[in-house]
Amino acid sequence: MTVAMTENFGNPSSVHSFGSAAKKALEEAREQVAQLIGAQPSEIVFTSGGTEADNLAVVGAAMANSKKGKHIITSSIEHHAILDSCKWLAKNGFEVTYLPVTSEGLVRVEDLAAAIREDTILISIMHVNNEVGTIQPIAEIGKIARERGIIFHSDAVQSVGKIPVDVNELQVDLLSVSAHKIYGPKGVGCLYIRKGTRVEPRSFGGGQERKRRPGTENLPGIVGFGKAAELARINLPEEQKLITLRDKLIDGLLERIPDCQLNGHRYQRVPTNVNVSIRYLEGEALLLSLDLKGIAASSGSACTSGSLDPSHVLLAMGICHEIAHGSLRMTLGRDNTEEDIDYVLEELPIIVDRLRKMSPLYCCEKAGQCETKEMCQHV
Amino acid sequence: MTVAMTENFGNPSSVHSFGSAAKKALEEAREQVAQLIGAQPSEIVFTSGGTEADNLAVVGAAMANSKKGKHIITSSIEHHAILDSCKWLAKNGFEVTYLPVTSEGLVRVEDLAAAIREDTILISIMHVNNEVGTIQPIAEIGKIARERGIIFHSDAVQSVGKIPVDVNELQVDLLSVSAHKIYGPKGVGCLYIRKGTRVEPRSFGGGQERKRRPGTENLPGIVGFGKAAELARINLPEEQKLITLRDKLIDGLLERIPDCQLNGHRYQRVPTNVNVSIRYLEGEALLLSLDLKGIAASSGSACTSGSLDPSHVLLAMGICHEIAHGSLRMTLGRDNTEEDIDYVLEELPIIVDRLRKMSPLYCCEKAGQCETKEMCQHV
Repeated sequence: MTVAMTENFGNPSSVHSFGSAAKKALEEAREQVAQLIGAQPSEIVFTSGGTEADNLAVVGAAMANSKKGKHIITSSIEHHAILDSCKWLAKNGFEVTYLPVTSEGLVRVEDLAAAIREDTILISIMHVNNEVGTIQPIAEIGKIARERGIIFHSDAVQSVGKIPVDVNELQVDLLSVSAHKIYGPKGVGCLYIRKGTRVEPRSFGGGQERKRRPGTENLPGIVGFGKAAELARINLPEEQKLITLRDKLIDGLLERIPDCQLNGHRYQRVPTNVNVSIRYLEGEALLLSLDLKGIAASSGSACTSGSLDPSHVLLAMGICHEIAHGSLRMTLGRDNTEEDIDYVLEELPIIVDRLRKMSPLYCCEKAGQCETKEMCQHV
Repeated sequence: MTVAMTENFGNPSSVHSFGSAAKKALEEAREQVAQLIGAQPSEIVFTSGGTEADNLAVVGAAMANSKKGKHIITSSIEHHAILDSCKWLAKNGFEVTYLPVTSEGLVRVEDLAAAIREDTILISIMHVNNEVGTIQPIAEIGKIARERGIIFHSDAVQSVGKIPVDVNELQVDLLSVSAHKIYGPKGVGCLYIRKGTRVEPRSFGGGQERKRRPGTENLPGIVGFGKAAELARINLPEEQKLITLRDKLIDGLLERIPDCQLNGHRYQRVPTNVNVSIRYLEGEALLLSLDLKGIAASSGSACTSGSLDPSHVLLAMGICHEIAHGSLRMTLGRDNTEEDIDYVLEELPIIVDRLRKMSPLYCCEKAGQCETKEMCQHV
């Protein structure tokens, strides 16, 4: 990336040598990204990130194929980049079916099959949920979509680099990837568009990215994305080792913290995701205490932080408001060690205990006088 | 930028310390960019570049204000990020007036005033043209727009950092800026949105950028943009020194190359732009020969390179197809010296002479047998 910023700083669209050197770097990155997901380089459209890729996939495919039909199927636990795109489409003449999920956050393939109509033109189901890490049966859905001739998009922002992702095995037509989720730079991503899939561009200007995404290319970002993709492909087997750490963390938390529950599927989840709800506590209070101990965690998704609403993902999984509010997401990464896990397992129960002693909710419920108990009968 | 990639790599939306450090860097960059154009930091929305900023301005403002009216005024020499946005709007129920320009590439303020209707909701006129460098009378247009209560956008991608740009002096409501045009990184830009100006977001997802532009922020890019903005502000007086070099290059070319004409205004142009048409030659052939001599130039705009159509800007200025095809754009920068100018003035006439001798067009016209002469009576 430094080379792309200090030496190879040409505009890939320019005719001169600076331009062609930049173009070469751009195409090399495209190959690296394509290889990671089993695609052809010409099927990769670079974007400014996962959000733009998701928007382009859903809105772009819906608009380009609206003459065939106006029905779209998605799930109720998608990222807001998908859900809000669908909302916009619904306001503009499309009809959207939001599939429910199981209490473990899984889309049922039979629900999907039953939701397909004659006028269904697009299915968008995420590969891995960003909050609870559940892995969806994408290949099965892809098979159904292909049999029915329906365009199939998957938001793979949370799966690429963590579990194997191959566009042909998954039978997807469109797939979103974000660089910064695979140790690449922020501000860059891509949409895989299978050859022959019609997608209307969402922005207007130059002829870059084969006229599918205008604007001077973010070359430093794209070059970084390419390198990150290459490394992600090489390091994928390593990433599976995180499963041991993840399971140690999950088991340890459930064992050491009373009234703590795992959110999402116990095994059908990415190696990197731990999400628990710690009853009687607010996620945000936990985050601040953890941060003081040098532990970086989150509550829900970063994209909705600051919002007071509980996670739409947890609610869709049938988890009540109170429990959803106390959710805590911890993401493991390449550099985490067993010592890190031991440290969290040592510190978090102490923090929980201290915060609970300060919580009127906890104290009165434990004394059998809680009014909120009735509010939360799903537990 | 290196710090933002290697140390301060948090997500500005995260609650933990990594997140707040990133947030701090983001807001510092916002202040630097705001200061460059005389805006408030809260009025800056970071985008993936000038194209996205232009799209957001024109489509976003049109959509958000369509209940007031559906008429938009722009010029015929805007960047395609504006023209193609207008085309899309015209297909979706809006009406667009494209103002003509003078032979020097200037919009006439009286034409603009005459084009305003009761239902005009948006005026978009670029500050400086990207191909010929002509500086438009933005402050005068801004005054009229404000008097008439019409939202005024200016694409200032080519003016910021080269001439003074102050959103209050120019009386603009929306202004597009690109980082890589002010020595910053590619893949980042911003839209200035004056407080109170209604713009509908064009993408869907998280609540970033005060809900006006979702997606995890391109922090390395934004930090680089901030620094570039700070330097552009400091170096603006230096940039004016390029006028001497520009004029030396223009005068030298017109003097040394027969049948060579300047495109754009002789003086009302940015210090960095030189654009000439060299008759009987194709711009692309010139570029390749220049490149072999280490001179990086372009023909038309980089965003439309590869296209066989002549520049829409030159055509709108009344320049005929043949002359437009032979246009050559040379951009001066901070590091150019008088020696660079001397070098171009030495090499280019030799190249032109050599290429013309190989051109059947040139030879037959000079021999008085040219058929194309009639085709190009505007010369």
